[in-house]
Amino acid sequence: HLSCVTLEHQHLRYNPLRDSWVLVSAHRMKRPWAGQVERPPEEHIPRYDPNNPLCPGNKRANGKGNPDYDSTFVFENDFPALQPDAPDPGSDQDPLFQSKAARGVCKVMCFHPWSDVTLPLMKKEEVVNVIDKWAELVEELGTIYPWVQIFENKGAMMGCSNPHPHCQVWASNFLPNEPALSDRCQRAYYEKHGEPMLLQYAKREERVVVESSDWLAVVPYWATWPYQTLLLPRRHVLRISDLTTEEREGLAAIMKRLLTKYDNLFEVSFPYSMGWHGAPTGPYLKEDNSHWQLHAHYYPPLLRSATVKKFMVGYEMLAQEQRDLTPEQAAEKLRNLPEDKKGTEL
Amino acid sequence: HLSCVTLEHQHLRYNPLRDSWVLVSAHRMKRPWAGQVERPPEEHIPRYDPNNPLCPGNKRANGKGNPDYDSTFVFENDFPALQPDAPDPGSDQDPLFQSKAARGVCKVMCFHPWSDVTLPLMKKEEVVNVIDKWAELVEELGTIYPWVQIFENKGAMMGCSNPHPHCQVWASNFLPNEPALSDRCQRAYYEKHGEPMLLQYAKREERVVVESSDWLAVVPYWATWPYQTLLLPRRHVLRISDLTTEEREGLAAIMKRLLTKYDNLFEVSFPYSMGWHGAPTGPYLKEDNSHWQLHAHYYPPLLRSATVKKFMVGYEMLAQEQRDLTPEQAAEKLRNLPEDKKGTEL
Ligand SMILES: O=P(O)(O)O[C@H]1O[C@H](CO)[C@@H](O)[C@H](O)[C@H]1O
Ligand SMILES: O=P(O)(O)O[C@H]1O[C@H](CO)[C@@H](O)[C@H](O)[C@H]1O
Repeated sequence: HLSCVTLEHQHLRYNPLRDSWVLVSAHRMKRPWAGQVERPPEEHIPRYDPNNPLCPGNKRANGKGNPDYDSTFVFENDFPALQPDAPDPGSDQDPLFQSKAARGVCKVMCFHPWSDVTLPLMKKEEVVNVIDKWAELVEELGTIYPWVQIFENKGAMMGCSNPHPHCQVWASNFLPNEPALSDRCQRAYYEKHGEPMLLQYAKREERVVVESSDWLAVVPYWATWPYQTLLLPRRHVLRISDLTTEEREGLAAIMKRLLTKYDNLFEVSFPYSMGWHGAPTGPYLKEDNSHWQLHAHYYPPLLRSATVKKFMVGYEMLAQEQRDLTPEQAAEKLRNLPEDKKGTEL
Repeated sequence: HLSCVTLEHQHLRYNPLRDSWVLVSAHRMKRPWAGQVERPPEEHIPRYDPNNPLCPGNKRANGKGNPDYDSTFVFENDFPALQPDAPDPGSDQDPLFQSKAARGVCKVMCFHPWSDVTLPLMKKEEVVNVIDKWAELVEELGTIYPWVQIFENKGAMMGCSNPHPHCQVWASNFLPNEPALSDRCQRAYYEKHGEPMLLQYAKREERVVVESSDWLAVVPYWATWPYQTLLLPRRHVLRISDLTTEEREGLAAIMKRLLTKYDNLFEVSFPYSMGWHGAPTGPYLKEDNSHWQLHAHYYPPLLRSATVKKFMVGYEMLAQEQRDLTPEQAAEKLRNLPEDKKGTEL
């Protein structure tokens, strides 16, 4: 779609999932970097640490003991941001000081009994267990709650405070800002074009990183983070719980391939925040959600190396997100990386 | 507006400037922090560093020399994210792959000839010089460009790569996402209530940090960053260039007071990203912008101490912003801090 001239010059790109624009300024990678350098991730994490509250058999902050789990393990967050019984602040209709009740549950899910593995280093069957558990939680919590957010903060750089491989699942009695926006955008597109936005998109996007018969991972045309990717099934699927057994196996395989490429990019266990977006649940289960397509967003912070990240700061916070290399460059770089573990110990 | 019961429990608050919600979960501060600890800011910055490209008389990356400036100094960013002559990618009407021309200029503005000062440590008259220069740049660039974004990234934690006190000014041929959203929200409010949103708000907000006869700095009811503040004049002012001489002096005084409190909070030169939002310019100069009220946003990352910041990651990126202490707690803490420099060397 874009000529070479454009690729090398600043331009704006539209993100149809968020109805917003990103400023692409490719040549900014040329500026020398004299700013903050992050500590590289810890390299030698013990398989079992008697003081790590996420390891099998250990005690957590609230005094409860973990079982001697040998697959995934789900428990309630000991310091939840959402609780089922929070009181209603009262329906304040003041346009300037408006509050609303926030109720929900926050769960933590360990991926594996070992602290020294990550999803790309786990066996395919073990990743399938994780996916099955995700589906189970969406189904279970989704009977009541309109939104079940599965997300993984990986790496200290992304606020993760425990090296044991885990993700979180926060379910809420409200549709949060991001999914509400995505819902609106997908609905408007569907009404206008008669087909789900992301299905039409998947057929046309050429910025492919990895693909299989069922799945596709791309650097979206409108990516804001340097190596951001979008992972989605080729079939029209509303929620993670709707995936067939084969699709779950395919997902485990493509996740391993994508995340291994990520680890190989800067030869470091790659930090990111990721999360699943699917059709809303709870009261929305009774409605038509054909405009939705299940997908995962990967937002990795690194820009130049294992220790230099992209700062989304002043201009980005106050005006508009800005990126320093093109999505085409990012996709090509990731596409050309090996899908098996490189030399260095991860 | 909120009872004690609510303050201690999770709830949502509405941000009328961004038409979005923030999840307030006060008791999350109780969770122990075992995650990333930042390096504290460098303490002994030399007043003049022969290798710092921002100091008076020194050479910059492009070989140009700085004058021997003794007040503020403005120059074109050597690696601009926006340039005046970027080619038009062509008006692509494709709903999935849409691009637009992005043109503009990026300037850097040094606040002072010395590297070892910051705005709160500068003399009031010196801060007035900065404000006058801001006003001048908005006026000058605003004759052509619809948006002139003044912003300061302070501290390495906020992506600032040079300790010399400076800010940036990026002018663009488009209204970026954030001001476009704020424009929409303020306009809708004005149409409904017949008065600018932020003027009505300023009269009622009690979460005051510092105030004077002309100016007000508050932790907004809907703040997302732990110690976020909003700074605005009490009079209806559209743009920074519309401020009177007295108002500029008042602004310099209140900025010094606010930023000294910030420095005193964790006894460290306080990192933040800040920026000014005023009525749009260029073609908008001919339109009625009565719905606008000039204001500055301060977004500081620190949460617990000089070295532990708030991570806006997984849930925040994928679902909704979440804060760990109430805006009331933050306002009270800031309000009670001294307005002069505390014991430790800043
Ligand atoms: O231009 P600077 O100060 O080198 O760069 C800094 O501010 C820019 C504008 O907010 C960001 O895009 C960069 O990521 C950040 O490092
Ligand atoms: O719950 P955790 O993993 O301790 O916390 C992490 O993820 C949360 C959800 O994205 C964030 O609010 C926290 O700032 C971050 O440190």
